[in-house]
Amino acid sequence: MMEKRQLIFDGNEKQVFSTDDIHKVIFRYKDVTLAYNGVKRAVFVGKGALNNKISAILLGELNKAGVETHFVELVGEREQLCRKIEIIPIEFIVRNRIAGSLAERLGLKEGIKPDEPIFDIRYNNDELGDPLINDHHAIALGLVTKKELKEMYSIAERTNNLLKNIFHKAGIELVDVKIEFGRASDNGHIIISDEISPDTARLWDESTGEKLDKDRFRRDLSDVVASYRTVLERLTESTGK
Amino acid sequence: MMEKRQLIFDGNEKQVFSTDDIHKVIFRYKDVTLAYNGVKRAVFVGKGALNNKISAILLGELNKAGVETHFVELVGEREQLCRKIEIIPIEFIVRNRIAGSLAERLGLKEGIKPDEPIFDIRYNNDELGDPLINDHHAIALGLVTKKELKEMYSIAERTNNLLKNIFHKAGIELVDVKIEFGRASDNGHIIISDEISPDTARLWDESTGEKLDKDRFRRDLSDVVASYRTVLERLTESTGK
Repeated sequence: MMEKRQLIFDGNEKQVFSTDDIHKVIFRYKDVTLAYNGVKRAVFVGKGALNNKISAILLGELNKAGVETHFVELVGEREQLCRKIEIIPIEFIVRNRIAGSLAERLGLKEGIKPDEPIFDIRYNNDELGDPLINDHHAIALGLVTKKELKEMYSIAERTNNLLKNIFHKAGIELVDVKIEFGRASDNGHIIISDEISPDTARLWDESTGEKLDKDRFRRDLSDVVASYRTVLERLTESTGK
Repeated sequence: MMEKRQLIFDGNEKQVFSTDDIHKVIFRYKDVTLAYNGVKRAVFVGKGALNNKISAILLGELNKAGVETHFVELVGEREQLCRKIEIIPIEFIVRNRIAGSLAERLGLKEGIKPDEPIFDIRYNNDELGDPLINDHHAIALGLVTKKELKEMYSIAERTNNLLKNIFHKAGIELVDVKIEFGRASDNGHIIISDEISPDTARLWDESTGEKLDKDRFRRDLSDVVASYRTVLERLTESTGK
């Protein structure tokens, strides 16, 4: 196991530590939850440990399927060893149903299923409030080349398909998922470089329609941690992890 | 000349009248100017007549170059005969330099010239504040088919190139331009269906950099009408209209 060294990033929901391998870092998941660009904040005891494990299962499955992610292995209750990356400040959101901010933006009812998944990209920039951008903007901002952007869309599409399937086997519908990318320091590839968890994906129980994700916090529903635990238990059972 | 019949649309800046030809309408340009989604409002005597003539020149040149527009002919000081269309509620903005709302959105300095023009599309919906959307959203909203959207991008690109050239001959730089489309009632084609004027394009004097467009109003600069008149005079001279 890698020794944890210096704190190199202290975020609201996560910390990142350097290790004795220059190409590896340790992600530490906090219990803090933020929503609406930090306007809403709470602590849910146990959330960090659950997301650490859920993300480990999902990223591990993606790795196995040939989609490169930063995840290497679990190294603690709320810690995982990850490949070091250089952040690409573009968030992809792949939507299998219209929900959340997009429903408001377009004036559409939550739950509508488009014929094909909708891809949103956002410029990851706190000061600007993570604005929705289009492909032209991403290029003009100098964040990526056209070729890299195309590759990211293709990885996002593949990831969505794999995750839909993984969740379906656990009786959960993947409504949408946020995917972040980075350039891996070890091989230069563009890889998935953030958690995938109920904090970053909308997950609905397939039979009851119940929300099992961060919307429980955003919308002041009860049982946030219990829902995350349900997600972990079902994934553990269906993947055999 | 067509007889003006019933008022079928009474907008803030324009009125539309039916005529005795079911495929034709008359556009009447008002002197009212709005900005920031209607928050800022003023009357500039003479503006409507100037935009009527500027738009007639520009749309006429586009027609001549084989880009179909709604414009048929001038029929009065502030009136032009146009083909009737069914509105497609998507605005295209083609940007040769970054300015205005996009500069704010991306946190970039006004005036930056991207390697290639930037295309923004917005959902034309007052209640929602004309939000920026992407191609996926346009399809999911059922506003257009993929094929139609592709055609609109291609018309927008061609229009931008033609207009850049027309303005350049008048010593004016086309910084950006808003293009709206409709389905023509006479032949079903997707055609350009709104004015192109200093109200809908950013126009900078090529030698002095002076703004000759609606930004003079938005930013409380003087000589709004005089600037529009300059644009008309230069276009009249350079196109021989």
